[in-house]
Amino acid sequence: MSELRRDPIGGRWVIVDTDHPHRPEDYEYEPLNWRGGACPFCYGNESMTPPEIEAIRDPHTSPNTPGWQVRVVSNKFPALQIEGELDRRGLGIYDMSNGVGAHEVLIETPYHQKDISDLLDQEVENFLLMYCRRALDLARDKRFKYIMIFKNFGAAAGASLEHPHTQIIALPMVPKSAAEEIKGAQNYYEYRERCIYCDIVRQEIQDKERIISENKHFLSFCPFISRFPFEAWIMPKKHSNSFCNILAEEVPSLASMLKETITRFKGIFAGLSYNFIIHSAPVNGESGTEGYHWHIEFMPKLMRVAGFEWGSGFYLVPTPPELAARYLREK
Amino acid sequence: MSELRRDPIGGRWVIVDTDHPHRPEDYEYEPLNWRGGACPFCYGNESMTPPEIEAIRDPHTSPNTPGWQVRVVSNKFPALQIEGELDRRGLGIYDMSNGVGAHEVLIETPYHQKDISDLLDQEVENFLLMYCRRALDLARDKRFKYIMIFKNFGAAAGASLEHPHTQIIALPMVPKSAAEEIKGAQNYYEYRERCIYCDIVRQEIQDKERIISENKHFLSFCPFISRFPFEAWIMPKKHSNSFCNILAEEVPSLASMLKETITRFKGIFAGLSYNFIIHSAPVNGESGTEGYHWHIEFMPKLMRVAGFEWGSGFYLVPTPPELAARYLREK
Repeated sequence: MSELRRDPIGGRWVIVDTDHPHRPEDYEYEPLNWRGGACPFCYGNESMTPPEIEAIRDPHTSPNTPGWQVRVVSNKFPALQIEGELDRRGLGIYDMSNGVGAHEVLIETPYHQKDISDLLDQEVENFLLMYCRRALDLARDKRFKYIMIFKNFGAAAGASLEHPHTQIIALPMVPKSAAEEIKGAQNYYEYRERCIYCDIVRQEIQDKERIISENKHFLSFCPFISRFPFEAWIMPKKHSNSFCNILAEEVPSLASMLKETITRFKGIFAGLSYNFIIHSAPVNGESGTEGYHWHIEFMPKLMRVAGFEWGSGFYLVPTPPELAARYLREK
Repeated sequence: MSELRRDPIGGRWVIVDTDHPHRPEDYEYEPLNWRGGACPFCYGNESMTPPEIEAIRDPHTSPNTPGWQVRVVSNKFPALQIEGELDRRGLGIYDMSNGVGAHEVLIETPYHQKDISDLLDQEVENFLLMYCRRALDLARDKRFKYIMIFKNFGAAAGASLEHPHTQIIALPMVPKSAAEEIKGAQNYYEYRERCIYCDIVRQEIQDKERIISENKHFLSFCPFISRFPFEAWIMPKKHSNSFCNILAEEVPSLASMLKETITRFKGIFAGLSYNFIIHSAPVNGESGTEGYHWHIEFMPKLMRVAGFEWGSGFYLVPTPPELAARYLREK
């Protein structure tokens, strides 16, 4: 029989197929298919992007020329635009506002075909540090309430450009899912005077069966209430509500955990496409967030569909996270 | 500049690209690709499915033989199983239960390649009436709190079998998205003493620009806060919280509206895959649902991706619903 599991943070139930679990070879995912062609994110094509906002580059090289390791530019087709004040107004029973915000692209490496698992540890550290620098810089703008950092890798995961990159969006409001997560964590925090994510870390370390890997500062595991098969979370063991507060000494630990986790995935699923999102507390004075705990949610793109789950908030998980973690641990 | 819009029911914000809107030809969707092969839902293969639960069939024909127009069977690989009492228990900080529920498949037509747009009006009425009969029957089981009726059509929309069919799932709890929608509507109802969906119907009829079609009992429109491009809702004009309370005289009106809407979609997007879900009130005594208003949410599968939106609850809509409705209206 299958199992129903309840997310203790958001109250969502998922159905886990414990009876006839899917093994990795049962997933017919769409593997990466490098098409090549002129790429605006490659060396020498710097003029094809909007001007550089920030970069890690060799001394004596100029912005918007080769010589960089990590490069941040505005999105050429931004979802939101930086100019203007938020102009919130009613429209009959509806509410709307102009699309104020920022939409940046962080190019993680000059190499077109290098996934995170192919980079040196130092290269991963560099772009993680740049995530943090951009988020801190954007948070200086008091109009912004939430900085969203996410990566779509591979066409199947929605990347419109194949060159590895991450998107950074600054929003004038906190997205609904983030607000719910933070509220759920805060409720628990006020009731128990403990962080629910810290409790999850403790329980996962004790139970062992859902752990993918552990190092000094981070834990990588398949969450008990995974919504997607082989979903994985990377979580700091120490309580902290904001990614940007990461200490310099923790960055190498996170880089190594992120690289290791993706390497393990690629060992099982060749040419995998994936998404990850950094879940972090809002910025600029949203209160009631001390019970939150930042983390990365990693979602491999193993199933072709989502329409239904999208609309219903109801999830069927064909591989129990305990089994997924075992495959990933043993890889 | 793009526009931010707020869903007045759930409080979710979406970003609508009003600057460079995608036209229908800008979507690279995956068209239907009929593969054929032995199909358990076709005439003559009735023994390939679990036994028939209910059917509309010619007199003098026996269950589990040809002669049917609509046929309902148990799902061969059910997400939930009908036997047993709900066994809810804690597991450390987590909550779980056994997977009690029902999972049925309704085969809408004996014809393997007929989408709803290819059926006669009477055939559409037949399967809609059967939706209703199955939902009423399942709701007699007091363990069930919610009956979910949804259709995945086409591999791109997650259908594992290509023969047209609908899934009916009875759940021992109300799914999170449904609970949120109902709560949002109820809050409005208690505050204004009016149904928010009735207000939406009124505003849409007045604004006109998002309407796809209207008939005696139903309205088909692209909602102001569409999360997906070309999303469409079919809504009864009369207030009613439950699909199962539909009157006999309203069924032909719904059948014709559903068929017309899908026909309009197929006129723009040949070989389209799609999902639809009937959103209806819970069953068996959940209170505080009188402010709810049942409807159908139709989601064409135009974009290949969802991973990121899935995880974040944050939606970018490349075609404004006003423009989508115009394309559909003029088709």
